[in-house]
Amino acid sequence: MVRVGIIGGTGYTGSELLRILARHPEAEIAAVSSRKEKGKKLWEVHPHLKGFYDLEFVEPDFAVFSECDVVFTAVPHGEAMKYVPELYEAGVRVVDLSADYRLSKEKYEEVYGKEHEAYIDAVYGLTELHRDEIRGAKLVANPGCYPTGAILAVAPLADLELVERVVFDSKSGITGAGASPTEFTHYPNLHEAIVPYKITEHRHYHEMEQELRRFQEDIRVSFTPQVFPGSRGILTNAHVFLRGELEQDELEEIYRKFYDGCYFIRMQRSVRLSYVRGSNFVDISVHKGRDRVVVVSAIDNLVKGASGQAVQNMNVMLGLDERLGLDYPPLFP
Amino acid sequence: MVRVGIIGGTGYTGSELLRILARHPEAEIAAVSSRKEKGKKLWEVHPHLKGFYDLEFVEPDFAVFSECDVVFTAVPHGEAMKYVPELYEAGVRVVDLSADYRLSKEKYEEVYGKEHEAYIDAVYGLTELHRDEIRGAKLVANPGCYPTGAILAVAPLADLELVERVVFDSKSGITGAGASPTEFTHYPNLHEAIVPYKITEHRHYHEMEQELRRFQEDIRVSFTPQVFPGSRGILTNAHVFLRGELEQDELEEIYRKFYDGCYFIRMQRSVRLSYVRGSNFVDISVHKGRDRVVVVSAIDNLVKGASGQAVQNMNVMLGLDERLGLDYPPLFP
Amino acid sequence: MVRVGIIGGTGYTGSELLRILARHPEAEIAAVSSRKEKGKKLWEVHPHLKGFYDLEFVEPDFAVFSECDVVFTAVPHGEAMKYVPELYEAGVRVVDLSADYRLSKEKYEEVYGKEHEAYIDAVYGLTELHRDEIRGAKLVANPGCYPTGAILAVAPLADLELVERVVFDSKSGITGAGASPTEFTHYPNLHEAIVPYKITEHRHYHEMEQELRRFQEDIRVSFTPQVFPGSRGILTNAHVFLRGELEQDELEEIYRKFYDGCYFIRMQRSVRLSYVRGSNFVDISVHKGRDRVVVVSAIDNLVKGASGQAVQNMNVMLGLDERLGLDYPPLFP
Amino acid sequence: MVRVGIIGGTGYTGSELLRILARHPEAEIAAVSSRKEKGKKLWEVHPHLKGFYDLEFVEPDFAVFSECDVVFTAVPHGEAMKYVPELYEAGVRVVDLSADYRLSKEKYEEVYGKEHEAYIDAVYGLTELHRDEIRGAKLVANPGCYPTGAILAVAPLADLELVERVVFDSKSGITGAGASPTEFTHYPNLHEAIVPYKITEHRHYHEMEQELRRFQEDIRVSFTPQVFPGSRGILTNAHVFLRGELEQDELEEIYRKFYDGCYFIRMQRSVRLSYVRGSNFVDISVHKGRDRVVVVSAIDNLVKGASGQAVQNMNVMLGLDERLGLDYPPLFP
Repeated sequence: MVRVGIIGGTGYTGSELLRILARHPEAEIAAVSSRKEKGKKLWEVHPHLKGFYDLEFVEPDFAVFSECDVVFTAVPHGEAMKYVPELYEAGVRVVDLSADYRLSKEKYEEVYGKEHEAYIDAVYGLTELHRDEIRGAKLVANPGCYPTGAILAVAPLADLELVERVVFDSKSGITGAGASPTEFTHYPNLHEAIVPYKITEHRHYHEMEQELRRFQEDIRVSFTPQVFPGSRGILTNAHVFLRGELEQDELEEIYRKFYDGCYFIRMQRSVRLSYVRGSNFVDISVHKGRDRVVVVSAIDNLVKGASGQAVQNMNVMLGLDERLGLDYPPLFP
Repeated sequence: MVRVGIIGGTGYTGSELLRILARHPEAEIAAVSSRKEKGKKLWEVHPHLKGFYDLEFVEPDFAVFSECDVVFTAVPHGEAMKYVPELYEAGVRVVDLSADYRLSKEKYEEVYGKEHEAYIDAVYGLTELHRDEIRGAKLVANPGCYPTGAILAVAPLADLELVERVVFDSKSGITGAGASPTEFTHYPNLHEAIVPYKITEHRHYHEMEQELRRFQEDIRVSFTPQVFPGSRGILTNAHVFLRGELEQDELEEIYRKFYDGCYFIRMQRSVRLSYVRGSNFVDISVHKGRDRVVVVSAIDNLVKGASGQAVQNMNVMLGLDERLGLDYPPLFP
Repeated sequence: MVRVGIIGGTGYTGSELLRILARHPEAEIAAVSSRKEKGKKLWEVHPHLKGFYDLEFVEPDFAVFSECDVVFTAVPHGEAMKYVPELYEAGVRVVDLSADYRLSKEKYEEVYGKEHEAYIDAVYGLTELHRDEIRGAKLVANPGCYPTGAILAVAPLADLELVERVVFDSKSGITGAGASPTEFTHYPNLHEAIVPYKITEHRHYHEMEQELRRFQEDIRVSFTPQVFPGSRGILTNAHVFLRGELEQDELEEIYRKFYDGCYFIRMQRSVRLSYVRGSNFVDISVHKGRDRVVVVSAIDNLVKGASGQAVQNMNVMLGLDERLGLDYPPLFP
Repeated sequence: MVRVGIIGGTGYTGSELLRILARHPEAEIAAVSSRKEKGKKLWEVHPHLKGFYDLEFVEPDFAVFSECDVVFTAVPHGEAMKYVPELYEAGVRVVDLSADYRLSKEKYEEVYGKEHEAYIDAVYGLTELHRDEIRGAKLVANPGCYPTGAILAVAPLADLELVERVVFDSKSGITGAGASPTEFTHYPNLHEAIVPYKITEHRHYHEMEQELRRFQEDIRVSFTPQVFPGSRGILTNAHVFLRGELEQDELEEIYRKFYDGCYFIRMQRSVRLSYVRGSNFVDISVHKGRDRVVVVSAIDNLVKGASGQAVQNMNVMLGLDERLGLDYPPLFP
C-alpha cells in the first residue's frame, strides 16, 4: 500500500482527498495535518467521514510526513512552498494543490511581484496533457480549477494552431472560494445571484495562457470568472474565434482524436454540471455557430478541478492505473 | 412629514427600513446611524438604494436622534437598551426591533439570566393583536420574526381556549441570521440543506408562550426553528392538538372572524412564501386532519417579521393609516 | 385614469404587469384576458395578488379591449399578431411584449423563415435609446429580456463606433423560460446548475445586432444565453474588444454622459442581481482589462426585461413621467 | 456474479440503481426496461452514465427478466403489481420500490379504497429493523422515503414503549417528486420556497404507523411532508412527547444500543443533509428539551430512501455483506 500524507486536512481540498482516498485500493492515509485541529479525530471536524477514519490530526512535522511515499500539500498559496522543498529533497513524491509551482519562475515572479525563494521545476499536472512527464515525476503542480476546465476545452484546437482568439467565461460553485466564511460567501450575498469577480485580472489567466501557448504561441486568451449559486462545479464557455472554417463534424472529430484514450474526458451532445458531480470526469460539447465555435466544458471543481486530479496524478506518478479510487459514476441529479 | 431616525442602519433590518420608508408618503428619514460606516453615503453601503437617498451615516448621538419624531432601534439585543431609555424620556416615540423589551421584566431576567437595568414597559407590537395599545404608545417592542408567524397562526384558536398542545416547526430564510458572515451562513453549509438549530431552546419560544398565554393560560407550546436555503421568508407549520372537534369550515370561519378588518392577514387555500415575498402580508391556511389541525403561516421575515411590522406600528402609533408605505403587492415569483 | 387592458394575464409577464400596475397612480386595469381561466378571479390564479383586484379573467374579445386606452399583449410569439393589428387600427395604443414586432419585416422573415402577414412598423421600446420615438407612438415593440441588458451595456461604446467585437455571455433566472413546466424547468435539472442553451443560435441575437448596428454598422456581435438557478434576473458579461485604447476613467465618463438623465440606469462599481431585483433599474459596471473591456449589466428580467419596461413605455407614450408605478427600491437581499 | 434486472430504468430510482450497481463487486446488470426508450443506449437517456454501460433499454418482458437472479421494480405505484407476481412465482427474487407491497392487504385496501388483486406477503425492507426476515426473503417491499427516516428516528423509543405522541415534520428534496415535470416541480415555484403538501393526508403516514405499532401499539403518530429547494435528501424532525423522563445521556445510550452493529446508522451531535448526500447512511441526533425530545434524522432520499436501501436489501437477501456497492463516503459539501 502507498503511504499517503496530507498537509492541510481541514479545507475543502483536504476533505475531498480524504473522501476519495477512503476507498483507494492501493493507498492508505498515514498522516493528516492541521495546526488548528491537531489532536482531534478527523471525523470530529468532518462528520460526513464518521466511520471511515480513526486518525487524529497532527502537526505538519517533517519527521512524520517524510515517512510517506506521497504527500499532498493542500494548503493556501504561499504556504505550500514552506513544505515542498524539504520533502522533495527527502525523496517524497509531492502533489501540490496550491498555486506555488504552477507557473514558470519568471512568470510567477511577474504575476506575484516578488521572488520565489523555494522554486523547483515541477510538472504541470493536467494529466491528459502531461501524462508522460507525470509518470515518474517527483513534484507535480496540480492545476487550478478554472484552468483545468478551460485548457482542456481548447487544447485540441490550439494544438492545430487554429485559434485566433478565445474568451473563457467561467462559472464556479462556491466551494471554489474555500471553507472559511467571508462577505463573498455569505449566503444572502449569493442567493439568486451570479457574481463575476476579478473580472479582468484573475491569476488563473496566466496558467491558461502559459499552457495554451505550449500548443500555439500566438493564441490570445481572455478570461472572466464568476460564481453561481451552487456548491460544486465549474462550467466554462469557451468562445473560440477560429482561423479558417470547420464543420461541426470536423470539430467533433478533432476532439475525439485528441482525447482518444483519455478515460476521464467524455464528449457529450450537451453538458451539465450534474453529469459530472462528485466525479473526475470532464464533459465537453462543441457547438459551431455562424460567427464562432463555442466549446462548453464541465468539471467538478473539487474533483477534476482539485483533489480528484491530484489522486489521478499520484496514480500516474506511481505507475498505477490512473482510474484507481476515481472510477465511479457521477452523482446525478 | 414625520421625521424618522434609524439607529443601526447597516444590518438587514436597518436596510429594509430604508427600502420601505423610501416611498412612505408621510415620513422622511432624518438620520441613520452606523459607528462603522459614519461619513459614508447610505448608497455606498447599500448600492441597491443608489438614487434614493443622499444622506450619510452618522454616529448614534442623542442630540441628533432626539430631534426625530420616531426612532427605530435596529441594533442587536443588548445594544438597544443603551439608546431606548434616554429617547423615551425625551418624548421620542421608539420602535425597538431588538429583543430587549419584548418580554416582561421577570421573564427577561429568567431567560437572559441577568438583571435588565434599563427596563421600560413596552407594548408588544404584534399589530393585529395589540392595535389599540399601540395607538398612542411611546415604546413598542417589535416582535421576533418567528413569534410573528407562529402567534398569528394560533391566536384565533387560543382565543377560544381550544388548544391542548401546539408544536411549531418553523423554517426561515438565511437573512434571519443577520448580515455578518459566520460558519452558519457560509454558502456551502446551507446549499441543498435544511438546518435545525437551537432545536429545543430558541429564545423566541418565550415570546410565543408569553403572548399565547394571554389568550389561553394552559396552552402548551413547543418550537423548533431551522433555516432553509433561501434569503427571505418564514414558513411555520403549527401542529395543533385541539380540545374537541371542529370541522374544516368551522375552523375557517373562526379565522375569518378573528382577523376581520386586518388588511395584512390573508386566508389562503394554500400558502407559499413567494405569495408574501417583499410584502407585509401574513398568509395563513388551515388544514383539518384526522389527528390534529395544521395551520400554516407565511411571512417575509424582514418585512412582517421585522421592518415592515415596525413601520406598521409607527403608522398606528401616530394615528396614520397602518398601510402607509406598505401597501403594494408581493414580489412573485 | 388611463384604462389598461392586458391580453394574456396568466403568464409571468402578465402577472408582473398586474403587480406593477396595482399601484400605478394614473392607470387602472380595465380588463385582463385568459382563455383558459376566464370567469375566475385574478387572485384565484395569482394568490399573491389577493386583496389587490376583484376582476375576473375574460376572453380576449376585441369589443372589450378596444375600449381600453392602452393594451399590453403578453402572449407568446406568433399569438400577439392576432390581436395587434385590429387594436392598432382602432386607435388603441399597444405595447407588445412578444417578439412579433421587434425586428424589421425583412429580418423577421429571414429569422422565422416565413412571411409576417400582419406586419406594422413599431418603435423598438428600449426606452432609454428611443424615448423620442416612443413619445406618441401607437405601437411599441417591447424588447426581449436579453437584448435589453446587452444593448444597454454596449450602446455608449457603439455610439462612438469603438467596438471591434463584442461577446455577450448572459445568465438568466428561470422565469425567463415562462410559467409552463417543461423538462428544462424541472427543479432537479436546474439545481446546482448553470445551463447554456441555444448556444450559438438564440433569436435574441438578431435584436442585439439590429439595434447595435444603428449605432455602429460594422459591429460584430456574439451571444450565448444560459440559465442560472434563480427565479429572476439577467446578468450579462459583455466582453468588448475595442478599437484603440481607453482608460478606466474615460470609459466611465463615456457611460455617464451617454446615460445622463436616464433615471433607471445606474453606474455601479460592481453590480449584483440583488441590487436590481423587483425593480426597473439597469445597473452597469465597466472594467478595463489588459486585453479588453468587460461591461457587466444587471436587470430584473421580468421588470426592465419585460413588464416594467412595458409600463415605462406606456408612460412615455402617454406623456407621463416615465417613473410612474416604477419608482421604488429593489428588493435586496 | 448476481444477474440483476431493473424494470423501470428511466426514473430517478432506476437511474440511481444504475449508479450504485455500476461498481457493485458481486452484481452485474443483465437487463433494464423502458417502454418509452427501448432500443436506446442507457447513456443516451442518462448521459452521466456514459462510459459505464453499453446496454440498451428493452421491453419489460417476462422472458428476459425471469432469467435474472434479482429484479428491482422501479415503476410507479399500481404498475409494480403487474410484474411482481409472475416473477415471484418463477422464483426470481424481487425488491419492489413502489408502494404496492408495503402495507398489509387490509391496510392497503383501506388506504387505496380498492381491492389488491395481486397481493403477496412481502417483508418490509427497512433493513435495520427486519434484517433476519429479509435474509432469504423472496419479495421485499422497499420502504417509502419518508417512512425510512421517520421510523428509524423513533424506533428505539417505541421499542421501549416510551412514546406518548410523535409529530414528524419532514423536508424532502425535489427528486422525491419524480423525474417528470409538473407545476409542483417547476423551478420558480420552488425557488426560495419550502412547500408543505398533503399536509395531513400523505399516504406514507400509514407505513409509519404500521411499522411503529409493531413496537408500541398505542403510539400516536402525526406527519406533515414538505419540499425544500434542493435535489436530494430528507430531513425529519421527530417531536417526541415521552412517557416519563429521560436524561440526554440515557437517550443517547438507548439509540447506541438499539443500533449497535448497524453500519449505516450513525449517531451525530448534529446532523446535516450534506453529511449523508449520495450515501446510504442515516445520521441521527437526539435533543432533550424542556417539553419534549426532538430526534432529527437525515438520509439521501434516493439512496437510503430508495435505491441504496434496495441494494442493501438485495445484499441481505443473497447472504452477501450488506455494504457491498454502498460502502463509500458521502459527497460533502
